[in-house]
Amino acid sequence: MFKKILIANRGEIALRVIRTCREMGIKTVAVYSTADAESLHVKFADEAVCIGPAPSNLSYLKMSNIIAAAEITNADAIHPGYGFLSENAKFSKICQEHGIKFIGASPEMIEKMGDKATAKATMKAAGVPCVPGSDGILASLEEAKEIAKEIGYPVMMKATAGGGGKGMRAIWKEEELDKAWESARQEAAAAFGNDGMYMEKLIEEPRHIEIQVVGDSFGKACHLSERDCSVQRRHQKLTEETPSPFMTDELREKMGEAAVKAAEYISYEGAGTVEFLVDKHRNFYFMEMNTRIQVEHPITEQVIDYDLIREQILVAAGVPISGKNYYPQLHSIECRINAEDPYNDFRPSPGKITVLHSPGGHGVRLDTHVYAGYTIPPNYDSMIAKLITTAQTREEAINKMKRALDEFVIEGIKTTIPFHRQLMDHPDYVAGNYTTKFMESWVMEDPNE
Amino acid sequence: MFKKILIANRGEIALRVIRTCREMGIKTVAVYSTADAESLHVKFADEAVCIGPAPSNLSYLKMSNIIAAAEITNADAIHPGYGFLSENAKFSKICQEHGIKFIGASPEMIEKMGDKATAKATMKAAGVPCVPGSDGILASLEEAKEIAKEIGYPVMMKATAGGGGKGMRAIWKEEELDKAWESARQEAAAAFGNDGMYMEKLIEEPRHIEIQVVGDSFGKACHLSERDCSVQRRHQKLTEETPSPFMTDELREKMGEAAVKAAEYISYEGAGTVEFLVDKHRNFYFMEMNTRIQVEHPITEQVIDYDLIREQILVAAGVPISGKNYYPQLHSIECRINAEDPYNDFRPSPGKITVLHSPGGHGVRLDTHVYAGYTIPPNYDSMIAKLITTAQTREEAINKMKRALDEFVIEGIKTTIPFHRQLMDHPDYVAGNYTTKFMESWVMEDPNE
Repeated sequence: MFKKILIANRGEIALRVIRTCREMGIKTVAVYSTADAESLHVKFADEAVCIGPAPSNLSYLKMSNIIAAAEITNADAIHPGYGFLSENAKFSKICQEHGIKFIGASPEMIEKMGDKATAKATMKAAGVPCVPGSDGILASLEEAKEIAKEIGYPVMMKATAGGGGKGMRAIWKEEELDKAWESARQEAAAAFGNDGMYMEKLIEEPRHIEIQVVGDSFGKACHLSERDCSVQRRHQKLTEETPSPFMTDELREKMGEAAVKAAEYISYEGAGTVEFLVDKHRNFYFMEMNTRIQVEHPITEQVIDYDLIREQILVAAGVPISGKNYYPQLHSIECRINAEDPYNDFRPSPGKITVLHSPGGHGVRLDTHVYAGYTIPPNYDSMIAKLITTAQTREEAINKMKRALDEFVIEGIKTTIPFHRQLMDHPDYVAGNYTTKFMESWVMEDPNE
Repeated sequence: MFKKILIANRGEIALRVIRTCREMGIKTVAVYSTADAESLHVKFADEAVCIGPAPSNLSYLKMSNIIAAAEITNADAIHPGYGFLSENAKFSKICQEHGIKFIGASPEMIEKMGDKATAKATMKAAGVPCVPGSDGILASLEEAKEIAKEIGYPVMMKATAGGGGKGMRAIWKEEELDKAWESARQEAAAAFGNDGMYMEKLIEEPRHIEIQVVGDSFGKACHLSERDCSVQRRHQKLTEETPSPFMTDELREKMGEAAVKAAEYISYEGAGTVEFLVDKHRNFYFMEMNTRIQVEHPITEQVIDYDLIREQILVAAGVPISGKNYYPQLHSIECRINAEDPYNDFRPSPGKITVLHSPGGHGVRLDTHVYAGYTIPPNYDSMIAKLITTAQTREEAINKMKRALDEFVIEGIKTTIPFHRQLMDHPDYVAGNYTTKFMESWVMEDPNE
């Protein structure tokens, strides 16, 4: 087993990893930017190394500094969390070259799954259902037009290096294609340094349902059932739940089997997530595979009594998985609490937290790196806490979330707590009747006005 | 179902009950003394009524004020929590007379179980194993001597109205009996206004293991397995766990069966706890039955996904129980965090909490009514939080407790956090090798000295 793990991340996920390491008796090293010196992950790690100034490219993305920190502190493994270097093939390779275990996917695996067109081709070969579309990158606008005609409008054009909705366009008729082609490629080039585009049929009224998988170093994989992440705003997940209110036992079996097939086809090692779009007829299509821990992993942990970070560490240390699949025994919901003003276009609201009171009690879990007196730096993403409630039924989990949100007091900044509180009363959410378009149709009202 | 429940209590248990009521859509009324105006139970209830000044006999024990508060606010039920009026037959009766449902035992039941000598006689008649001793109250010192000779020394003399160790004496030989007889009776008379004494064989190296039961209004009862509460100091529980490390499947079956038999024999309605002493040969003896929710109930909730407060409310509303028994699926530990100085004879340390940071994450539950800026009044018991960790194994639950205690920051007052942190490393605790005498033999060292 590893003796010391360096966590190449910040915020709640850094703290999350430190917690499991402590519980496993593994020493931890935090790395931090100068903007994060007061963060809890720095306080709770056994050692902490400053790796540079606030901009991520000078600290959390600065591979040489992180590797140096690992070597100085004699860490034998690096956990990358999510975001930052978690899906960076080069970093995974550099770790390998330095004899430091990267707790995540191999460089080859990241490359295979990181490029979306390649990922899709691989999944197609594995027999996993994919959205009809181009075979890989579009060579030209003409090819784009041909394929769109073939699969039928509406279609989606997507950046092969994409994420977070960048370089992505929905196209409803041929006339729109020329303009979309230019603007999406420019956007992709600027965001990812790669303007490669591929095309897919646009799935109408889609649900975003993902399957958690864990693979070991012996080529065996299992699934841990689904998470429904359809409540999104501009492709950013806001709240997630498991089981999905749209799920049937039959569909879970099929999707779980497809996800395990996908993971085993590529000999996937570690925790990963196979994201699917599910249409209203319960057809499902491979969207992408994330070769890292997800923000929303706790809801899976809550319904099956599992510690996914522990599992990542065990698998990375060469421990085989049991091979059985896991099914939800309870219902769990996560609300991402962001330092944003939900009534002002979710504008970031960094600043000092003057008062903080955490909800607690039966069925409530809180993952956060902030505390009263903490100043949220403006440099990073705005998520400051994940509030998770778990109960025997969906209705009870929603009721628990309402009372936990009511108890959650954060003063000094704006947060998305009131948004989630409204969401939990929204008739369509309560009915489990939502797609990824849900937020577009909801005209939110500021309860204070 | 009840529309509005008044909670005749304070602190974490008042908040605990409010939480479940909110989740069930039941309105709540808090009552509070002037010393508790800033307590969270006041803030989170739908309504709050001040019932008098700080001394409990003028507020939380003042039945007329509480009944008046219930009538003014139109509450249709009263939840008494633990302590205060929770096991007061007169109060249960007054509620009945006012047409307010008392969410607890009937006056008859409380009387039967509240008087320890009567309780023991009842349990004996029900066929539940009891510690050999006097049949009821000792008529004289002479009778005490006779019975002690008969059952053999060492013996325990106990106040029939007792609790918290008051009016209780261990007697190892006949010469000690005269003095003990006088002093114990005086102590009992002062504490309870009742100097009735009974005698029992002293169980050496005993474990305090209790069985949670729930009975419904149809005469049916079930058990929810055990809690080991052997880690005590002066008969005050400090930490509890389930399952008991001393338990076997066979013993659990036997004790569970005895507890259900006890509950059904008296047609017990509501949540109750049958406390047993278990000797080193795994013989078990009825000690007492608590006709209320216990402080340590959350560990049971954690290992069987159950909400005991909800169950109390349902049963009080006339809903039948399923009748099946519940067995621990996980391991859970509770540490009672008290505002006391563990390195100064656990002396109370009331005052203002200047900094508070709550532990969180996977498998951590915190039940507390305090917050940063809150001033702990000196008038009540010193428990300020219950920290509960849950995991698949005992070892993992201990490791989780260690890291949660390490994360728990309370400044401005002394707390028992460092005591629990030391306990979690104590070889006998880690080995599960402890009895109710554990704290007597442990010479604690102040890590700061």
